[in-house]
Amino acid sequence: MRSDPFFHPVSGAVLPRFAGVPSFMRLPHLAPDHPRRAEVEVALFGMPWDGGTSNRPGARHGPRALRDASTMVRAEHGVTGFRPFEAMACADLGDVAVNPVDQDETLDAITAFVGDIVRGRARPLGVAGDHLCTLPVLRGLKSAEPPGLVLLDSHTDLYPLYFGGSTLTHGNPFRVAVEERLIDPARSIMIGMRGTRYNDEDRLFARDAGIRVVPMDELEERGIADVAEEARDIAGGGPAYLSFDIDFIDPAFAPGTGTPEVGGPTSAEALRLLRALSGLELVGADLVEVSPPFDNGGITAWLGASVLFELLCLMGDETPR
Amino acid sequence: MRSDPFFHPVSGAVLPRFAGVPSFMRLPHLAPDHPRRAEVEVALFGMPWDGGTSNRPGARHGPRALRDASTMVRAEHGVTGFRPFEAMACADLGDVAVNPVDQDETLDAITAFVGDIVRGRARPLGVAGDHLCTLPVLRGLKSAEPPGLVLLDSHTDLYPLYFGGSTLTHGNPFRVAVEERLIDPARSIMIGMRGTRYNDEDRLFARDAGIRVVPMDELEERGIADVAEEARDIAGGGPAYLSFDIDFIDPAFAPGTGTPEVGGPTSAEALRLLRALSGLELVGADLVEVSPPFDNGGITAWLGASVLFELLCLMGDETPR
Amino acid sequence: MRSDPFFHPVSGAVLPRFAGVPSFMRLPHLAPDHPRRAEVEVALFGMPWDGGTSNRPGARHGPRALRDASTMVRAEHGVTGFRPFEAMACADLGDVAVNPVDQDETLDAITAFVGDIVRGRARPLGVAGDHLCTLPVLRGLKSAEPPGLVLLDSHTDLYPLYFGGSTLTHGNPFRVAVEERLIDPARSIMIGMRGTRYNDEDRLFARDAGIRVVPMDELEERGIADVAEEARDIAGGGPAYLSFDIDFIDPAFAPGTGTPEVGGPTSAEALRLLRALSGLELVGADLVEVSPPFDNGGITAWLGASVLFELLCLMGDETPR
Amino acid sequence: MRSDPFFHPVSGAVLPRFAGVPSFMRLPHLAPDHPRRAEVEVALFGMPWDGGTSNRPGARHGPRALRDASTMVRAEHGVTGFRPFEAMACADLGDVAVNPVDQDETLDAITAFVGDIVRGRARPLGVAGDHLCTLPVLRGLKSAEPPGLVLLDSHTDLYPLYFGGSTLTHGNPFRVAVEERLIDPARSIMIGMRGTRYNDEDRLFARDAGIRVVPMDELEERGIADVAEEARDIAGGGPAYLSFDIDFIDPAFAPGTGTPEVGGPTSAEALRLLRALSGLELVGADLVEVSPPFDNGGITAWLGASVLFELLCLMGDETPR
Amino acid sequence: MRSDPFFHPVSGAVLPRFAGVPSFMRLPHLAPDHPRRAEVEVALFGMPWDGGTSNRPGARHGPRALRDASTMVRAEHGVTGFRPFEAMACADLGDVAVNPVDQDETLDAITAFVGDIVRGRARPLGVAGDHLCTLPVLRGLKSAEPPGLVLLDSHTDLYPLYFGGSTLTHGNPFRVAVEERLIDPARSIMIGMRGTRYNDEDRLFARDAGIRVVPMDELEERGIADVAEEARDIAGGGPAYLSFDIDFIDPAFAPGTGTPEVGGPTSAEALRLLRALSGLELVGADLVEVSPPFDNGGITAWLGASVLFELLCLMGDETPR
Amino acid sequence: MRSDPFFHPVSGAVLPRFAGVPSFMRLPHLAPDHPRRAEVEVALFGMPWDGGTSNRPGARHGPRALRDASTMVRAEHGVTGFRPFEAMACADLGDVAVNPVDQDETLDAITAFVGDIVRGRARPLGVAGDHLCTLPVLRGLKSAEPPGLVLLDSHTDLYPLYFGGSTLTHGNPFRVAVEERLIDPARSIMIGMRGTRYNDEDRLFARDAGIRVVPMDELEERGIADVAEEARDIAGGGPAYLSFDIDFIDPAFAPGTGTPEVGGPTSAEALRLLRALSGLELVGADLVEVSPPFDNGGITAWLGASVLFELLCLMGDETPR
Repeated sequence: MRSDPFFHPVSGAVLPRFAGVPSFMRLPHLAPDHPRRAEVEVALFGMPWDGGTSNRPGARHGPRALRDASTMVRAEHGVTGFRPFEAMACADLGDVAVNPVDQDETLDAITAFVGDIVRGRARPLGVAGDHLCTLPVLRGLKSAEPPGLVLLDSHTDLYPLYFGGSTLTHGNPFRVAVEERLIDPARSIMIGMRGTRYNDEDRLFARDAGIRVVPMDELEERGIADVAEEARDIAGGGPAYLSFDIDFIDPAFAPGTGTPEVGGPTSAEALRLLRALSGLELVGADLVEVSPPFDNGGITAWLGASVLFELLCLMGDETPR
Repeated sequence: MRSDPFFHPVSGAVLPRFAGVPSFMRLPHLAPDHPRRAEVEVALFGMPWDGGTSNRPGARHGPRALRDASTMVRAEHGVTGFRPFEAMACADLGDVAVNPVDQDETLDAITAFVGDIVRGRARPLGVAGDHLCTLPVLRGLKSAEPPGLVLLDSHTDLYPLYFGGSTLTHGNPFRVAVEERLIDPARSIMIGMRGTRYNDEDRLFARDAGIRVVPMDELEERGIADVAEEARDIAGGGPAYLSFDIDFIDPAFAPGTGTPEVGGPTSAEALRLLRALSGLELVGADLVEVSPPFDNGGITAWLGASVLFELLCLMGDETPR
Repeated sequence: MRSDPFFHPVSGAVLPRFAGVPSFMRLPHLAPDHPRRAEVEVALFGMPWDGGTSNRPGARHGPRALRDASTMVRAEHGVTGFRPFEAMACADLGDVAVNPVDQDETLDAITAFVGDIVRGRARPLGVAGDHLCTLPVLRGLKSAEPPGLVLLDSHTDLYPLYFGGSTLTHGNPFRVAVEERLIDPARSIMIGMRGTRYNDEDRLFARDAGIRVVPMDELEERGIADVAEEARDIAGGGPAYLSFDIDFIDPAFAPGTGTPEVGGPTSAEALRLLRALSGLELVGADLVEVSPPFDNGGITAWLGASVLFELLCLMGDETPR
Repeated sequence: MRSDPFFHPVSGAVLPRFAGVPSFMRLPHLAPDHPRRAEVEVALFGMPWDGGTSNRPGARHGPRALRDASTMVRAEHGVTGFRPFEAMACADLGDVAVNPVDQDETLDAITAFVGDIVRGRARPLGVAGDHLCTLPVLRGLKSAEPPGLVLLDSHTDLYPLYFGGSTLTHGNPFRVAVEERLIDPARSIMIGMRGTRYNDEDRLFARDAGIRVVPMDELEERGIADVAEEARDIAGGGPAYLSFDIDFIDPAFAPGTGTPEVGGPTSAEALRLLRALSGLELVGADLVEVSPPFDNGGITAWLGASVLFELLCLMGDETPR
Repeated sequence: MRSDPFFHPVSGAVLPRFAGVPSFMRLPHLAPDHPRRAEVEVALFGMPWDGGTSNRPGARHGPRALRDASTMVRAEHGVTGFRPFEAMACADLGDVAVNPVDQDETLDAITAFVGDIVRGRARPLGVAGDHLCTLPVLRGLKSAEPPGLVLLDSHTDLYPLYFGGSTLTHGNPFRVAVEERLIDPARSIMIGMRGTRYNDEDRLFARDAGIRVVPMDELEERGIADVAEEARDIAGGGPAYLSFDIDFIDPAFAPGTGTPEVGGPTSAEALRLLRALSGLELVGADLVEVSPPFDNGGITAWLGASVLFELLCLMGDETPR
Repeated sequence: MRSDPFFHPVSGAVLPRFAGVPSFMRLPHLAPDHPRRAEVEVALFGMPWDGGTSNRPGARHGPRALRDASTMVRAEHGVTGFRPFEAMACADLGDVAVNPVDQDETLDAITAFVGDIVRGRARPLGVAGDHLCTLPVLRGLKSAEPPGLVLLDSHTDLYPLYFGGSTLTHGNPFRVAVEERLIDPARSIMIGMRGTRYNDEDRLFARDAGIRVVPMDELEERGIADVAEEARDIAGGGPAYLSFDIDFIDPAFAPGTGTPEVGGPTSAEALRLLRALSGLELVGADLVEVSPPFDNGGITAWLGASVLFELLCLMGDETPR
C-alpha cells in the first residue's frame, strides 16, 4: 500500500455509504490551499458547465450527481481485485469556477485548473459537463508530445463549427484539438459512433487527419476484444488520453444525457471494453455528458460512477503495484 | 437527389432540432387541400387512437410524442449512408380524425385516409395508436394481390375476439386481416413472440393459415441474420407490409407501451434486424403501441423515432437510387 | 365575430384536442412568407433559448411543451366569456431561429423577429426561454413612448451583471431595459418577489429608478384586488408590457422552472390576479421560464398554457368588442 | 358500535398498513356468493373503465390505485371523531366485470351490479373509472323519487353528445341522467366549474333544467361555508347522490386525472367543503377520474383515498349514532 | 389437470387483468383459517420488511408491487407450454405480520409462517422484502437434510456482521445459513457477483465453506448454458432452494432495488438462465429486493412478476405431469 | 457583522450555486478535529436514519438531499433582511455515524453527537431522518430546565409504543420526551394535526400532560397570526425547542415524506407561521421526515431547504444584532 490513509475514502463501516457530505468516491475534498494538495497523484474534479450544448442541456448538474452516486463505490475492483485508493493518492479537488453564461471565461478557467494539476505532477480525472469541456482539459495538458486519444462515444465530435458561427459547441472539441495539436491523430481511435447524421464531414476530417473511427455496427461485428486490441495498438506505446461520453452506452442504460443515440452497447459490454483497454499510459481521462435532469431514477449517474471507477483503475495500471 | 427541397426537413443548421412546431421528422405538414399533396411519395401520418386496448391505454398520445422525438432525426442513415428525404418526397399528412369513443367510425376514417394516400400513389407510413389501427390501414391498401406481412412484435395479435363480445381489440387485427384476405398468410412471418399466454389458439390459427411464427427463444438461438434471411425469403418477391409493435423490444428499452413482455431484444438487436430486412417491396409500414403515459423520460419515443427512420429507409430501398 | 375563420383554432369537434401537429392553441402556423401573415393581429411565437440561465437550464424546451399543452385550450374564457380567437386574428409564427451557444446572435434574432411583427402591425405574445429573452423583445418594440411594465415574478431581475463578467444573464433584463429606456420605470410595477437574496442591490436600483416593487408578503397582506388596482393605476393610461415568469407561482403548482422560490401564490390566486389586470393597454406580453426537464408530469406546461390564454385575453381587452 | 368486527378493516397494529392484499380501506373483500354479503350496509366497489374518455385515458387503473392508497386510512375521522367502520357494515365487493372495448356491455354491467347492491339494501360507494360510469350507477339506483345531485367537479358534464356521434362520453352523464329522470334537477347543484370552454351549451341546459351551477370564481368569492349551506338547502330534505370528480381539486394536488383545470381549490378547501355537506341523505356516492398514469408519485391516489373516506363518513351521517 | 379450479387465477376473460383486488397472480387469497388452506401445494406469500437494509430502503413495499404487477401473468408458459396453476394447487397466503422496527420479532414471525406452510405439506414461494428475509425462510424449512442453494444475485451476502454490531443485515443471510446448517454449502452455487467490494472476506468464506461462486465476468465468458449445467450438477440430486435477488439483473432492467450493480445480465439472459435450471428438486424459492420507490415506471415489478412465474414453473418441474 | 468570513457560505459569485461539493448552505464542513470547530455557534448536522419508520421509509436519504437543495439558499432573508451567516458562526458538522439496522446504537450516537455540540456551547440545528431522531437530540440537550416545545407536524407523535413491542418508532418521540422530562409539557404546543387516526390515545396523553394541541381545522379557523401568538405565549419566556416535520405542509407541496396527510397548509402559510414565531429563545431546532425516494422532482427538498433557512434565522433572533 503506497498511499497514505489520509487519501482513502471514508469507509462504509464508519459511516453508511449514503451518509455524509458527498465528495467523489468519498475522497478527501482538498481546497486549493490545503497543505497536502501537493501529494495528490490523481486529481478528480468537476466541470459543471454545459454552455456548448446544442441540444438538451443539464450536464452542468453532472458533477454533483456523480459525487452523490460515487459514494457507493467501494475499495476494490470486482474483477481485477485492484485497490486504486491504496495504489495512488487520490483526492477531490472540487469544481472549476465556471461561468454558466461565458464560454471563453469558462474554457480558460478549466485550462488553468488542469494546468495547476499538471504542475503539481498529478494526473487529471475530470467529470463534466458537456463534451466541449474536454478541449480545455487537453489544452491544460498540452506538452511537446501530444497524447493519443481513445474516445468512447456515439458521436465523433469532429464537426466544423455550426449554427454558422464562431462559437464552439460540444460537437467540435476533437476537431479543434487536432487543429491545435493537442492530440496525435495517428494515435487516436474513436469507438461506438452511430445514429443518423447530417453528413459525413466528420468522417472525412477523421480520414484526412488519420483518426481511426470504429462505428457501432463494426464493434458489434468484430466484438469487444478485437476492437480493444486495436485500440491498445493505436493508442498504446506512448501517452494517451481517454474520454468517455456516457452516450456511448445505449440510452436504456444511460438515459440521462443530452443527445442519446439508440442501438448502443449494454453497460456490461461497455465495462468489458474498458477493462480490455488496460495497459494504456494515461495522462488523464474524463467522463462527460451525464445530464441529471434527463436521468431516470438516477441510473445514469450510478452507471457513470461505475465508469469513473473503471477510469480510475485504468489510470492506476501504469502505477507499479 | 430526386426530391424537391420543399420536401426536405427543416435543417438543424437553420433552427435547432428541439425548436419549432414539431411535425414528423420536421417534414412539411400538408393539409388535405395543399397544392403539392399530390407529389408526396411517402405519407407519414398519425392514428391517435387506442380504443382497441385491452390493457394499459395511452397509445392515443403516441403520434404526438413521436412527432416531438422525431425532430431529432437527421438527414442520413448512420450505417448505410442512405438519405431518404432526398430519395423520396416525404411529408407529414397530419392525423386521422379519430373518434376516441367510437370504434367503427374510427376504423372507417383510417381506411378512408389510407385510401386517399393510395389513390394519390403515395405509400403510407403510419404511426398509431394501438395495434388495431393496422387493420384499417390494410383495408385501405386492399388490392387484388394481398401483401405479405412481416410483424415484429411480442404477441401474434391473432386471437379470436375476446371479452366474449363482438368488438375488436388490439389482439385481433391479423386474424381479421387473414379472414378478410388483406394479407397473404403464406407470405407472412411474425417474429419475437414471448411471455405467458392464455392458450395456444393464436398459434393454431397461424399454423392453419400458414403464417410462420418465430418466437423470441428461437430468434435468440438462431440469431438475427438467419431469421432475417428467412423473413426476406417468405415476404420477399412480392408486395409486403411491415408492422412494428414497439413491444417487440425489451421493456427496459421501450417501457412506454401497454402490454410489455420482458425478455425481448435490445434496441441494437432490433435495429440490426430491421437493417437486415432490406430489399422488401414495401407497400406500407407502421409503428404502433408507443404509449407515452407509461414512458420513462421519453426513451420509448426516442427509440420509436429511430425505428420510424429505419422503416422509412426500408421503404426507400426499392426506390431506384 | 371579427376574425376570419382561417385564424380560428382547429376545433376539438373536428380532431380530438390531443391529436394533430401541435401549434400554439391549435392556431394556424404561418411561415414568414405565408400570404396571410399580414393579417395577423396577435402573433404568438417561441424563443427556445436559455443561454442566459445562471442556475438550472431547460427553458429552451419551454415553447414546444407549451405548444403541446396549449392544444387543450378551448375557445371561450370560463369567467368572462370572452372568445379571443373571434375577436382578434391570432396565429403561431413559429420560433425565432436562436443559436443555443451564441448570446449576441440570439438576442439580435429575437429583436429582428419582433421588429417584423411590429412592422406588420401585430402585437407580440412571446413564449420563452429564459427571462433574458424579454430584453430583445422590448428592444424590438422600442418606440418613442416606452411602455410601462407589469412584472409577475419571484425575482426582480434588476441585478447588475454578475459572475464578474460582461455577459448578460436572466437576472439582468429589466435593469438593462431601464438603462436602454425600453420601459418607463415610473409606470412599472413588479409583484411577487420573495426568497433569499444575495443583497439589496436590485431593490436600491428599483427605488432609484422609481419602479414599484410589491413583495410576496405585501401581496399576501393586502390581497390580490388591492394590488391589482395599484398595478392598473401605475401601468394604465398608456402602453404597457406584461411579463409573466412562471416562477411567480408556487413551485408546487409550477415545479418546471429553473429557479423556483417556495411560498408563492396558488394557481387560483395567480389567475385571479391576471383577470384583475384587465384594462391595460398591452403592446405585448410574454410567458417565460417554463423548464420542461424539471416539470412533474407536465403540470407546469399545463398551467403555463392557461396563463398564456389569460395573457391573450388581456391583450384582447382593448380590442372593441 | 353497531357493526360486527368481521366488517372492520385489518388493523395497522396487526399488519403494517403498507402490507397485505389491498382491498378498499383494508375491508373484507366479499365475492358475490359470500355468505355475509347480505349484511353489507355500504358497498365499496370499483368500475375500472375509461371508455368514455375524450381526452387523456388511464382512469381504468383508478380503482386499483385507490385500493392501494386507501390502506393508509385509519379508523377515526380526525375532525369529527366519527368511526364509520363501527357505525356501518362496510365491505369491498370487488370490481364490476367491465369490458374495456365495449361501452354498452360495460354500462349494463355497472347498472346490474348496482342493482344488486340496492336490492341487498346496501348503499353504493363507487370508485371509477371515468365520469361516464356515474350514469349506470344512477340507472342502478333508479327509483320513483329521483335523488338530488351534488356534483363537485371542474366541468358540468352536461354536454350534448359530441364528436358528432351516438356514443356517450364522460362529458354527457348528467345531461342523460336528467333526460332519463335519474336525478331531480331542481334538487341538484354543481360546484367548482372553471377553465376554458367550447361554448355555453352546458350552462343553458343547466339553466333550462333548473340545475344550480356555482363556478369556481363564485366559490372563491362567497367562501366554502356559504356555498355548502346553499348545497344543503338545495339537495337536502330528500335523497341525494354525491359525485366527486377528482379534477374538482387543483392539479397541483391532483395531477393524476384526464382533463385537469388549473385554478381549483386546495385539498384543504375541498375537504372542508365535504365536511360542510354533512347532513345530506345520501343514497350513494362516487369518486371518479383518478388516472394513475398521469399521477405524480401517487399524490392523487392518496388524496382520492382521503376524499373516499370523507364520502364514507358523509354516508354515515344519517346513520343513528 | 390436477388442480381444482378453485385454485386457478381469475381469468382475464372474466375480469380484465388490470381490474380486481390484486393477489399474487390473481390466485385465491386464503386467510389462515380458510377451510381449503390444507390443500395448497405451493404457497405464495409476502415478507414486506426491509429492516436489514444497509443502503437504500423500500423493499418493504415489494410484495404489494408484485401482487399488482403479477396480475398480468397468464396461464401458460410461453416457451415450455407448462400450465402451473393446473399442475399444482397454488394460493396467495397473504403477508407475514412483520414489525417494521423489530428485527427479532420479524424474523421469528417469518420462520413460524414458513413452518406452518411446511407442516401443511406445501412448499413456500416467498416475496420479500430485503434479502435478510431468506434466512428465516430457511430456518422455517430446516430439516435433517439441508437443501443445496442456487443464488442468483450480484452479491454473495456472505459477509460477517458489519457496522461493528450484533444486528443482522441483508449482507449476512447465507453466512448465517451456513453456520446454522440451513443449507449444504457443498451443494450450493452463487451466480452473477460483480461490482466493487470492500474486501474478499465473502469469497474466502465461500472457499472455506465449499460454496461455488461464479462471478459475472465468468458467466459472460462461459455462457448461460454452461453455467446452468454446472448449477444443476452442484445443486441437483437432492433438495434445493432457489433465491433470486432482483439485483442479479442489470439496473437498466431492474432499477427498483436497493443496491444495484451495473454490468449485469439482460432480462432475456436472466430468464434463459432460469429456464435452464429446470429439473431441480426445489423445496422452496424466493424473489427479493424489489424496491418500488426506486423503480422507474414499474418495470422492475413487471420483470419481478415474470421471474416469479419462472420460479413457480421451476417448482412445478418435479411435479409429475 | 460578527461572524468571521471563514464561516460564510461559498458565494454564488465565486462558484455557481449548483456547483461544488454540497455542504449545508455551502457552509464550511468541519471534521470533529477541525481547529476552528470550537468557534461554531450554530451547528448544522445530519441524522441519516429512518429505522423508526412504521410506514414508508427513505428519510435516511433526507440529509443528503437537503445539503444538495440548500446550496440554493442565499445570504439574506427576503422579508426581514436578516443575514444569519454574518450574525452567527455557522458550520456543517457532517452526519452522525448512524447504524441503519441498530436503533439503540444510533440513538446513543445522536445523543453523544449533540452532547458534544452543547459542550462546545453551540446550538444544534439537525436534519433527520425520521422523527424518532428528535428524541436523542433532546436527550443530548438535557438540562435542569427542560425546554418548551413547538411542534409543527400533522401528527402529535405522542403515541404509546405500538406493534405490540418494546421498540421505539417515529410515533413515540414526544411521549417519551415527556416521560423522560426532556421537554416541559406546560410550555409545549403542537400545531397542524390532521388526518384519520387509530384512536385518541395521543390526545388524552397531551391533555393529561398539559400539552396544547392545535389541529389543522382550528388553525384554518383562527388564522396563522392568532395561533402563532398563542405559541409564543406558551413556549416563550424560557428555552424552547422547535421541531418541524415536513409533513406539516400539504403533500402537494411536500410529497417526499413517509406519512403524508392531505389538507395541510400551503408553503406560503407554513413560512408565514414560522416567521410569526420570531422571538423564541431556541436552544435547538430540527427538520425531519424529508424522504427523497417519494419526492417529485425535488420540490420537497427545495421546500425543506427554505424551512431550514427560516429555522436558522429564528435561531438568530435572540442573538444581539
